[in-house]
Amino acid sequence: MKGPPIILTTDFGQVDEYVGVLKGVILSINPAATLVDLSHAIPPQDIGRAAELIFRNYRYFPHGSLHLCIVDPGVGTKRRIIVVSADGHLFLGPDNGVFSPLLRAYEQAKVYELTNRDWFLERISTTFHGRDIMAPAAAHLSLGAPIAEAGPLVAINSCVRIPPAEPLVRESEIAGKISSIDRFGNLITTIENHHLDALSHKSCLTVSINATEVQFHQVSYAELPDHLPAAIINSSNLLEICVKNDDAATVLGARIGDTVLVKCG
Amino acid sequence: MKGPPIILTTDFGQVDEYVGVLKGVILSINPAATLVDLSHAIPPQDIGRAAELIFRNYRYFPHGSLHLCIVDPGVGTKRRIIVVSADGHLFLGPDNGVFSPLLRAYEQAKVYELTNRDWFLERISTTFHGRDIMAPAAAHLSLGAPIAEAGPLVAINSCVRIPPAEPLVRESEIAGKISSIDRFGNLITTIENHHLDALSHKSCLTVSINATEVQFHQVSYAELPDHLPAAIINSSNLLEICVKNDDAATVLGARIGDTVLVKCG
Amino acid sequence: MKGPPIILTTDFGQVDEYVGVLKGVILSINPAATLVDLSHAIPPQDIGRAAELIFRNYRYFPHGSLHLCIVDPGVGTKRRIIVVSADGHLFLGPDNGVFSPLLRAYEQAKVYELTNRDWFLERISTTFHGRDIMAPAAAHLSLGAPIAEAGPLVAINSCVRIPPAEPLVRESEIAGKISSIDRFGNLITTIENHHLDALSHKSCLTVSINATEVQFHQVSYAELPDHLPAAIINSSNLLEICVKNDDAATVLGARIGDTVLVKCG
Repeated sequence: MKGPPIILTTDFGQVDEYVGVLKGVILSINPAATLVDLSHAIPPQDIGRAAELIFRNYRYFPHGSLHLCIVDPGVGTKRRIIVVSADGHLFLGPDNGVFSPLLRAYEQAKVYELTNRDWFLERISTTFHGRDIMAPAAAHLSLGAPIAEAGPLVAINSCVRIPPAEPLVRESEIAGKISSIDRFGNLITTIENHHLDALSHKSCLTVSINATEVQFHQVSYAELPDHLPAAIINSSNLLEICVKNDDAATVLGARIGDTVLVKCG
Repeated sequence: MKGPPIILTTDFGQVDEYVGVLKGVILSINPAATLVDLSHAIPPQDIGRAAELIFRNYRYFPHGSLHLCIVDPGVGTKRRIIVVSADGHLFLGPDNGVFSPLLRAYEQAKVYELTNRDWFLERISTTFHGRDIMAPAAAHLSLGAPIAEAGPLVAINSCVRIPPAEPLVRESEIAGKISSIDRFGNLITTIENHHLDALSHKSCLTVSINATEVQFHQVSYAELPDHLPAAIINSSNLLEICVKNDDAATVLGARIGDTVLVKCG
Repeated sequence: MKGPPIILTTDFGQVDEYVGVLKGVILSINPAATLVDLSHAIPPQDIGRAAELIFRNYRYFPHGSLHLCIVDPGVGTKRRIIVVSADGHLFLGPDNGVFSPLLRAYEQAKVYELTNRDWFLERISTTFHGRDIMAPAAAHLSLGAPIAEAGPLVAINSCVRIPPAEPLVRESEIAGKISSIDRFGNLITTIENHHLDALSHKSCLTVSINATEVQFHQVSYAELPDHLPAAIINSSNLLEICVKNDDAATVLGARIGDTVLVKCG
């Protein structure tokens, strides 16, 4: 183990060789690097999903970790590659909005454009900057190279932002969406626990999805009633719709993007 | 590398971020931990499958390894979390039967209830004890913390057991089931090599599955006859039904749970 | 980190426990081994695909890396297992053609038959030599054991070769095939950049696949025209057919093995 761990998030999947090649390039520069996969199953080119995933989970990794995010539909164009220092972690990826939630949360974040060719592979393809530019740069940073050597400091306001997937919050109702569906078929929504505070009556909430009403519970999965879809606050403080020991997505015929409404009483 | 490797078995799949987050939590406590995935493709909540997988494979890992098993439909309830010391390995997971085959095989195993809050994350969710309780506890154990600090020793007989997936063995016939189907479409059964010894005539066995009779062979895959389904003893000493360079599950229309009969001659 | 990294390529998938078990065996012998997955999604028994994948990507791993390839339909037969030293890397796998491109490219490669039983597990199954023979041998090599201890040097010409997936190159036309389809639906062909040099007119190439003509471009993905299938040279110097931000395999109804034609003007 040499230097902080490098955490990889990509839309490469695990069928092709792309993730393995990233790791080969990193180990060629820092043979003792610690490499961890956060997810390689980001839907192709889905910057928003990657942004959410990284923002909600980076804090579970060691202070000083380097989060490498390669979801890069603009690969080979003039889009910048940036290194962000925020909340004691480093983030490296294309300047395409993938770090938006982070930049929104940490206005004091420092952002550098990655331009130091000494850190790149010699030959740079037009279609795989993860391999040729980002992975080797991550390796150099993990060896302790100062972030300021990555390239020039850039104004945080110049970075590409994508709009947050915020729910519409009113006193009587919150309208959010399903942002992802996990392996268990749980429906994760864009509605955070703190959004519920805006409702005038927080007791006895009803949640509806695709014309089905589900009850809100503040219990664990196992304590939910059998077979009935239910809404809970999950381990990321998000409203989640689930069915005890079953697949809520199938039971409810739900899909990513479907509207979820929360109402009082 | 610091301390024994931590081997992860879960039903989390590899699409979501859950496995990555477990690793982040572990590395935050033991930055030099060695982490190995055994399988994250346990069918959701399938305690029996996880129990079999861990029991059949733990011995291939270094003496002293720590096997972390998170298949935990009872997460957030009063179900215990236990640490088991057996056969020179450590096992950590919910007390829901996932260590049944192990406890059955090692009656001298020592079992501790995990109650030491100093080992947990500060905030404990109701739905992700893998992240909040089990992963950090595993990290502390991997750093060399004595197992007795996990919590009180509990009676091995107090642990939840699930019934073994034993075949019905008679002198003339063995009735087992397909317990899993691997990537190659091989049908792995609950019938172990030693069960065959009970048959009065071990030569010239016939195996039948879904009304198809297949021949028993004591050879390698490549030496099997082309196209014909065949039964062999596999590398885990289990009766397995396969088709040379083909997918037995598809060829035979077989599914997990289907009955497999072995008869003499 | 002790010794060179061991890079794993198999057709085991990531659902079963097989890959985890390989790693357990390796770590039991070299507890500090660095293990990297290149791909475990080689189609079952597809030696040609594994051969290509390893040959095109081994160079991205550190000099001295040990590439363990377990795609082994002949497991348990008299087929040899070999260790190849070529281009500063080591390769270990069955002598079934999986190292053909490598042996073709490096005629000075040294090939040893793996016969040293001291490196094997005690009990050797007929169906899982990856676990019982190859993984432990790789571990011993990673600890610094001299390759000559693996077993006798064998003549490189005695090794099994599979024919290369070379395109048919004429002055007016190149006929290749789709060799793989990646997660993005990009169609990777057997046509290499240098093959195009054989064409009398390299400007204004047209590429056709399944009766659809697509334009050849020398730009990045993002600079391609919207929705239109296009041909580019990819990051492995191979002709690739893609659709900007879309899935070319679906758009074109293309499959592995389909013919791809390149014509002048």
